[in-house]
Amino acid sequence: MRQLYVGNKNYSSWSMRPWVLMKQAGIAFEEVMVKFDSFGEGSVFKRTMLPLNPNATVPVLVDDGLAIWDTLAIAEYLAETCPEAQLWPADRKQRARARSICAEMHAGFGALRSACVMNIEADMAEQGAIIWRDNAGVRDNVARIISMWSELLADHAASHADGMLFGRFSIADAYYAPVVMRLTRYALPVPADIAAYLKRVEALPGVKAWIDAALVEHDFVAFDEPYRIKR
Amino acid sequence: MRQLYVGNKNYSSWSMRPWVLMKQAGIAFEEVMVKFDSFGEGSVFKRTMLPLNPNATVPVLVDDGLAIWDTLAIAEYLAETCPEAQLWPADRKQRARARSICAEMHAGFGALRSACVMNIEADMAEQGAIIWRDNAGVRDNVARIISMWSELLADHAASHADGMLFGRFSIADAYYAPVVMRLTRYALPVPADIAAYLKRVEALPGVKAWIDAALVEHDFVAFDEPYRIKR
Repeated sequence: MRQLYVGNKNYSSWSMRPWVLMKQAGIAFEEVMVKFDSFGEGSVFKRTMLPLNPNATVPVLVDDGLAIWDTLAIAEYLAETCPEAQLWPADRKQRARARSICAEMHAGFGALRSACVMNIEADMAEQGAIIWRDNAGVRDNVARIISMWSELLADHAASHADGMLFGRFSIADAYYAPVVMRLTRYALPVPADIAAYLKRVEALPGVKAWIDAALVEHDFVAFDEPYRIKR
Repeated sequence: MRQLYVGNKNYSSWSMRPWVLMKQAGIAFEEVMVKFDSFGEGSVFKRTMLPLNPNATVPVLVDDGLAIWDTLAIAEYLAETCPEAQLWPADRKQRARARSICAEMHAGFGALRSACVMNIEADMAEQGAIIWRDNAGVRDNVARIISMWSELLADHAASHADGMLFGRFSIADAYYAPVVMRLTRYALPVPADIAAYLKRVEALPGVKAWIDAALVEHDFVAFDEPYRIKR
């Protein structure tokens, strides 16, 4: 059985991607939760993850003794080993497009990621309004995301009723699911077509299962809480 | 004919990856050189790249009207469309391992990338010695690279005489070729097995062709020259 090592569901945006992908696509796996701690030398987190991943980060997928330690590598591995799940778009060009935007997410959107840390249980609307007023990098990131999604949604609306980025659910939607969490929790302004996509993503059973689990964690990890003293 | 849009060969580490990959693997393409300029609104660089890539960056691969704008997406697209080139390792587990380290490069090694900007024509040994003395992040990055490469080279030495990371040349070697440029130009200290790998990579015809072209450019792009006033 595949094992997926993940961090706190409330905070760990990178863990969310492959977990949502597998859950939503119906790929069986066993979850191993490794809660965030100090990340210091000798911490439980480091001692658990280091034998699996030289960078001691989550997520890691372990399959038949093989540890794969990056979300993009995990996604490609699952696409290869579970072809029936159709994780990438079937069309070669759309697949290349999906890989382009996933790679863009993988190394980009730094302003949004650092200013609007994922915090699923929290209402960050007030903080979001201040960030939106003051942080041009966040506004640029969100403008790019809106433009990307609007174009994709318009291109695929006719071909598939699910209304995901490439019509039916794919790695691309899983990859941007943590961005959906940021946009909604920080209440950043988006046009109606994007707001409707946010709702559709939140309603996906795989996403909803992650959110529900995040809401019952009740942890408070200080370095992921730049805006709150306590829960 | 595929077209690959690249920046200055002396500086553009991201451009180097797919160019070296295709050249070394014998995949035909037409190069389109878009020299770095101010990157300001309305600059030639921006005006050229923006219609191909919403982020207006290089490299971009254009194939049959399709623009693919990230190195990882380009690599996956080429691996799919040119299976005869065997760009990823043939073994499923080694392929997952290769994807893990490429993804690690894609979003990581920030200290090395920002302190030791790629500058193929320059002798940066003195700057490298100071960086090595003062920058713990660079030392950590290099330690991780040495550990990663040593393990891979040892694992594959017996199976293939070429001495690349996965035996024969793959996307992984192309992906780390700019790191080879940094280690050699800044003369950062590496053990003998790694020094031998650096020499093997520099001797690959695809890498040598890129280096030779970089050496005759004679440009001087100030924002990529934190350590020199002039050439």
